[in-house]
Amino acid sequence: MVKEREQNPKDKKLLVGVIWNFSAELKLTFMALLVLCTLATLLPFLPSSFSLSTSDFRFCISRFASAVPINTTVVVEELLENTTKKPIPELDRVLDNGVVKRSFTGYGSAAYNFVSMSAYRGGVNSFAVIGLSSKPLHVYGHPSYRCEWVPLDPTQDPVTTDGFKILTDWGYGRIYTTVVVNCTFSSISAVNPLNSGGNLILHATTGDPDRNLTDSIPVLTESPNSVDFNLYNSTSRRSNKKYDYLYCGSSLYGNLSPQRVREWIAYHARFFGERSHFVLHDAGGIHEEVFEVLRPWIELGRVTLHDIRDQERFDGYYHNQFMVVNDCLHRYRFTTKWMFFFDVDEFIYVPPKKTISSVMESLEEYSQFTIEQMPMSSKICYSGDGPARTYRKWGIEKLAYRDVKKVPRRDRKYAVQPENVFATGVHMSQNLQGKTYHKAESKIRYFHYHGSISQRREPCRRLFNDTQVVFENTPYVLDTTIRDVGLAVKTFEIRTIGDRLLRTRQ
Amino acid sequence: MVKEREQNPKDKKLLVGVIWNFSAELKLTFMALLVLCTLATLLPFLPSSFSLSTSDFRFCISRFASAVPINTTVVVEELLENTTKKPIPELDRVLDNGVVKRSFTGYGSAAYNFVSMSAYRGGVNSFAVIGLSSKPLHVYGHPSYRCEWVPLDPTQDPVTTDGFKILTDWGYGRIYTTVVVNCTFSSISAVNPLNSGGNLILHATTGDPDRNLTDSIPVLTESPNSVDFNLYNSTSRRSNKKYDYLYCGSSLYGNLSPQRVREWIAYHARFFGERSHFVLHDAGGIHEEVFEVLRPWIELGRVTLHDIRDQERFDGYYHNQFMVVNDCLHRYRFTTKWMFFFDVDEFIYVPPKKTISSVMESLEEYSQFTIEQMPMSSKICYSGDGPARTYRKWGIEKLAYRDVKKVPRRDRKYAVQPENVFATGVHMSQNLQGKTYHKAESKIRYFHYHGSISQRREPCRRLFNDTQVVFENTPYVLDTTIRDVGLAVKTFEIRTIGDRLLRTRQ
Repeated sequence: MVKEREQNPKDKKLLVGVIWNFSAELKLTFMALLVLCTLATLLPFLPSSFSLSTSDFRFCISRFASAVPINTTVVVEELLENTTKKPIPELDRVLDNGVVKRSFTGYGSAAYNFVSMSAYRGGVNSFAVIGLSSKPLHVYGHPSYRCEWVPLDPTQDPVTTDGFKILTDWGYGRIYTTVVVNCTFSSISAVNPLNSGGNLILHATTGDPDRNLTDSIPVLTESPNSVDFNLYNSTSRRSNKKYDYLYCGSSLYGNLSPQRVREWIAYHARFFGERSHFVLHDAGGIHEEVFEVLRPWIELGRVTLHDIRDQERFDGYYHNQFMVVNDCLHRYRFTTKWMFFFDVDEFIYVPPKKTISSVMESLEEYSQFTIEQMPMSSKICYSGDGPARTYRKWGIEKLAYRDVKKVPRRDRKYAVQPENVFATGVHMSQNLQGKTYHKAESKIRYFHYHGSISQRREPCRRLFNDTQVVFENTPYVLDTTIRDVGLAVKTFEIRTIGDRLLRTRQ
Repeated sequence: MVKEREQNPKDKKLLVGVIWNFSAELKLTFMALLVLCTLATLLPFLPSSFSLSTSDFRFCISRFASAVPINTTVVVEELLENTTKKPIPELDRVLDNGVVKRSFTGYGSAAYNFVSMSAYRGGVNSFAVIGLSSKPLHVYGHPSYRCEWVPLDPTQDPVTTDGFKILTDWGYGRIYTTVVVNCTFSSISAVNPLNSGGNLILHATTGDPDRNLTDSIPVLTESPNSVDFNLYNSTSRRSNKKYDYLYCGSSLYGNLSPQRVREWIAYHARFFGERSHFVLHDAGGIHEEVFEVLRPWIELGRVTLHDIRDQERFDGYYHNQFMVVNDCLHRYRFTTKWMFFFDVDEFIYVPPKKTISSVMESLEEYSQFTIEQMPMSSKICYSGDGPARTYRKWGIEKLAYRDVKKVPRRDRKYAVQPENVFATGVHMSQNLQGKTYHKAESKIRYFHYHGSISQRREPCRRLFNDTQVVFENTPYVLDTTIRDVGLAVKTFEIRTIGDRLLRTRQ
């Protein structure tokens, strides 16, 4: 080798030249870095009239730093992306053949390619990424996703796989729609098998036919020794769930009634029992007084409240409820045997001789079952206790008239065994493995007090004493199913959290 | 004053301090500029393995240059925008009250805020800006536009006005919709009154409630002494129009038939006469053979072809036809008395005793009139000349059966006096001043050979000799209106451009 080199002095010169050039690059880079870092450090002490902020310098520095070839895949793509997106307006020009060549220049951004909410491990080699993406991009374009696992240990190679996108919005999107990306790696061994940590990167491509723009988004970090692989081991996982029943609530919005929320949580905390948990999502509906109603239950560990107000910046269907329930599904997927999806104006019920656990045991072979609705009036009340006492009763005690108008179909709600579910909707999941059961009405139903939750006043507009009533052209029958457990619920509340909520207002 | 200063040495120190700080800033800025410029100059000579491009340096330089307070409005907004859009992922955190505060981070861009195609002066103090914007942004959001005129002379102040946005797509948008922004400045005097030049900047705001992102887009430059204000002077403008009739074509797409295009252009060049012009838009439909058909007419100055293929990157309704016709309207607004909007499978016709100029004179009081459709078969032919000769005839000579099926309403096409029009659609303009006339059917009609233009084969599927025919359940009658002028059109073509197109294929 040495001989060969000596025989060809040209090669030697070339080699020296390359080294020299390379060191020149390094010198230049470091010189620039030095100057910029000095500036960035000094800048905060300069008066504010100077219109350049430190973040601008940092931006430049980050661009320089990117030139150093560490993490090349991610960084280079980011560079390219920034360069491509910077609009360079072309001028129209007349070609040799007389044709006027017109140009079009895009500016700014009307919608993000992807809004990241969360990502969760879903098995030894799979993950779920939950977020929003532009609705028309998914209707008219061809966006695609790739997932990359980058181990923290630089001697291990990254692995990639196609992301399988699930759109859950049933056509309801606005500027944004909800996307769940399932990243299942084909490797037989686990991803992160030595539990040495790593990062999951989602590469989201807009599918622009000419300019294949890809955003590389770090969605999940697993620090060393943080993964409990036992969780995904089918033999051990059945036995040690934290909860039997977990409630995933939809986005809560508007001026909610504290008293109605109080009744709902007390009723269901009693109904589902000790091994249950309630996850609520505040999209602006949990104002101070509603929070006071939840506080005792949060302190007891029975309720978790997620503040999701920041999603309001991204205009999707009903406060991005599809994103929120999917986040809940994947976040709590391995903590509970069953997961329930219904609203805070709905009350689950099983017949007198059954219990929730006996019913759920009988439905164990199903991954999902849907629940039939009993529509209740939220305006007319039963005055069986006399008018004066009626007004002091809870809503569920006096709103005892059930709507019996014949309609083709009423909305259903549902429960799932979440380990079998990949994505979920509002009225049922369509992305699951295993069977779905739609005939559970003799075992479990829900009573729906539509509109009761968002009115902050005494609900009774009219009092009746009859078993059958027609009100506003709708026939009703007296149905005291929920009313009959009112006393038990009130007793349970006092026994569990004391009298802290006695002064709760409508 | 001197005394006062001496009496208060603090002030003096302060003043010196300010000067010192200010010069420090300048030093820093210029030092950084010097280093960066040197780098930017040297970089192209460095080997390509170095992964930082000159444009990155230029980008940094432009950011430094922005710090010098010239054109502050525009530049500062751009700076802010870039800083805001850089995603800084927040981590979810648990608040003191036990609430889980969730965060959402947007990445990349699924649609531009505004895609700029063109801007034209529309009067002494008004302009029209034509482009695309995100469809759901306009359906669900509240985007807004402001226009700013920045004189080239730095001693003159910029002026601004609200942009009035016109959406022309009749609900047809996809990822993008067409936006025409009318910028009418309220100043009594003209914008750019001394003809000293300036720039029109469109400030496009997405209307994000929390982060009011604005893109500042340079849309039009008027160089000194470039504006002919006589054009907008109502007394002089009527007389000296270049054309009487100008045709604005929609986006041409697909595998068009050269022979059908040849017939269309020859027919209308003869029909509209010498003082007419045809503007066609190539969205991919003007392939080599079609271009050969247009070439003689382009060389004669009768046709202008705009290559708009680059708009395909932006997914709007039918190759962004609404944007294209609006560009045409405003680009040629002051060059023609009348402007026609119809398709290349449609043939305008006036009755035998009328001429196009007599008809147009009689409609002069209207800003717009719509034109009734005569639907023609593009499959069945009249074999009055015998089968062998029929196949050698032009399409307009043999496609002589008119569809007489009763339908509630057929599409119309239209013509306008463009100076009265602010934006236009495909079937009519809804943004104009003056009267619209819908009852011109006795004066002017159009024959529509639907589907004939995009089939590259002999059009006749069946030959008939009858005056009444039922074909594929549709009744037809023989209508030789267009057929009868076939010979005259062919003669006109040979006389005008010679025999160059004789070998044109279907």
